[in-house]
Parts: sequence; structure tokens; C-alpha cells
Amino acid sequence: MKEILRIRTTKRTSIVNITPYIREILKRSGVREGLCLVYVPHTTASVFINEGADPDVLKDIVYTLEKLIPWEDPSYEHAEGNSAAHIKSAIIGNSRIVPISEGNLLLGTWESVFLAEFDGPRERKVVVKIFPDVD
Amino acid sequence: MKEILRIRTTKRTSIVNITPYIREILKRSGVREGLCLVYVPHTTASVFINEGADPDVLKDIVYTLEKLIPWEDPSYEHAEGNSAAHIKSAIIGNSRIVPISEGNLLLGTWESVFLAEFDGPRERKVVVKIFPDVD
Amino acid sequence: MKEILRIRTTKRTSIVNITPYIREILKRSGVREGLCLVYVPHTTASVFINEGADPDVLKDIVYTLEKLIPWEDPSYEHAEGNSAAHIKSAIIGNSRIVPISEGNLLLGTWESVFLAEFDGPRERKVVVKIFPDVD
Repeated sequence: MKEILRIRTTKRTSIVNITPYIREILKRSGVREGLCLVYVPHTTASVFINEGADPDVLKDIVYTLEKLIPWEDPSYEHAEGNSAAHIKSAIIGNSRIVPISEGNLLLGTWESVFLAEFDGPRERKVVVKIFPDVD
Repeated sequence: MKEILRIRTTKRTSIVNITPYIREILKRSGVREGLCLVYVPHTTASVFINEGADPDVLKDIVYTLEKLIPWEDPSYEHAEGNSAAHIKSAIIGNSRIVPISEGNLLLGTWESVFLAEFDGPRERKVVVKIFPDVD
Repeated sequence: MKEILRIRTTKRTSIVNITPYIREILKRSGVREGLCLVYVPHTTASVFINEGADPDVLKDIVYTLEKLIPWEDPSYEHAEGNSAAHIKSAIIGNSRIVPISEGNLLLGTWESVFLAEFDGPRERKVVVKIFPDVD
């Protein structure tokens, strides 16, 4: 079972909590045990899992990524000017997997799944694919 | 098939070789071909695969992560003071997948699977889930 | 279904577009819907997905990784002298997953799958494993 979310980002760097949408898809699927793949087919975006309770955690992640991989660098050669976004996307990765247990995402208490767009604002697709366990 | 390891870490940053425990779980499962997911549901921890032969490799990984993402930074906003651990976890990722081939983990000769905790000491759960190939 | 690619790299750091080989394997498999795992069992290599259209994007990724994780650092302890390659591999990760949809890799228009070797030249194995959806 596969569904595609469409997420509109609003800033150059946006981190969007997509956990509620993934939970809805999982619920509709009726799958109790299995695996959920969350995947973005975009070269300036990433998916990651981290704390969803305190938004300051996301600020600190964005701040550190920008410090390490600045938007401007005279050595960048890519003509579109968004090299930093490509680099962040390649390093963090464009998917995460979450086990499914008793019909729920097996996330920690404070965890959420995030779409990160590093060259927005844009509308982005997120593929959510659910693989039920096979008996 | 799914099992949960409980790993007690001893320092702020601990890198624990969990390969022997994963091999035991795989053996008990009897699965010959498939996929093994190793997943931590914790926002200051990661899973990664790298050299398990020379512990100096792990020291150099820990050293470089600390150099790039220092524990203290006056710009961090998260009040708990462990932003560096969240950032490392988000970037490295909280799971790895290993193919299963002829009843073994398909790892290179010198490779091991590691749990990394960046805000210990703590007891952490690691989910090991095995997906057999379907004929 | 599993196949192993053998890729010869030519420089210390080589980023090789392996998408055409993966597409061939997928075509031979006949799988229409499922998941494709691309995995390297090597501790100085990574797999990532990013732009395949403009080679300058890859140059900027390699440049930034080298800037952040330099080959030489007096604090490295690993005697083989290739710590930087291990660190890059551990952070970026040694696999990526691509959903399969209508018999094709579900990649964005400009996306490719890359093998990155950070301590070449070497011959490297890449495991491509295809998991069909189960009805």
C-alpha cells in the first residue's frame, strides 16, 4: 500500500512534522505489524526522525546544518546556487523506515517524523509505503 | 519476527557493538534470506555500520562528530542542553538495514553494527526486526 | 532477488552513478511494485541519492565533505590513515532504499543513485536486492 503526501513548505528551510499524516495512512491500511517507508524523491529534501515536543530542537538542528554547510561558499560550482541544500539532503538521506507494531508506528514517546526542505518554498511529494509482515 | 535489545551505555557518548546480539536473533529466527532492520526509537541515539576491528576508528568518528557538533554552543536554544546529541542522531539516522544471505548478516569482513548514544549514560532499546524473503 | 555489482573506482574519492545498473537488474526481475535496497558492505563507502544531471552538484558534495572531514587531522588515532573515509561512510550511511512503482525506480526527474568511495581507488561490491510487494 502506497500513498503520496503533498506538502507545501513556506521558507527556504522548512522542517514539517508529517507524523499525523503517516498515522492516518497507517490506520486506513489496517496493517498491524510491518514496516513503513517514508521517502522523498527530491534532491534538496530529507526525511528524519527526532524530537517533536520542543520546537527549539528543530531550530538547533537547522542552525547547526547551516553553520556546517553554509548557503554561500565561493568554492561551490553548481550554477543554480542551491548546493548547500543538495549537500544536506545527500548526507541526511531521503528516507527513514519505521517499524509498525500493534497497528502503530513504533516511535519513541517524544519522536516525530519530519520532512526537511532545504531549498524552498516548494510543494513536495512524500511517498509513504506500508509493508505488512508475511506469515 | 521482532526482538528488542536493552543496552546500557556508560558514558555521555558510547558506541556499542551490537552485532553479536543481532546474530543471535537472526540464528534463532532460522531465516536464510531476507532483510534485517536495526532501529532505535530514541532521539539522541543512532545506528550505524562501520569497522569493528580497530577501536581507534570509533574514537576518530566520535572525535570528529564532537568537533563538528560541539556539546556547548551559545546559539543552541533547546533548554535541556543536549542539542548536540539530537543533531548527531538526526543526521546519522536511527536505523540501518542489513541484507540476510545464507543465514548470515551480509556484512563486510571488518564490519559491525553499532548503537551510538550521544546523551548517556542511559538504558536504550534497539528494535531488531527480520523480514524473510517471500517465494 | 539479489544481484551484486562490482564497481571499480579510480580516485581517492569517486562518486559513481550506478542507476543504469540498478535499472537493468530491476527490469530483469520483472517486479512491478516493491522496494529496492542498494547496499555497500564496505566501511569507507556510502550510497546516496541526489542530482544526476549536473556533475557540479557532486563536486560541491565532495568539496564540502572534505572541508568538514579533512583527510589529515593530527588528532586521528586510526593507524591506517583513512579515518576521514570511515567517518564519511558512517555518517552518510551504507544503503538507500528506493520504492518500485509500475516497474520503475520511484526517483525524481533529476535523481540518480550513487556509490561513493572515500578511500579508493578500489573495486567495490554493491548489493542490489529487490523485494516485491505481497498481495
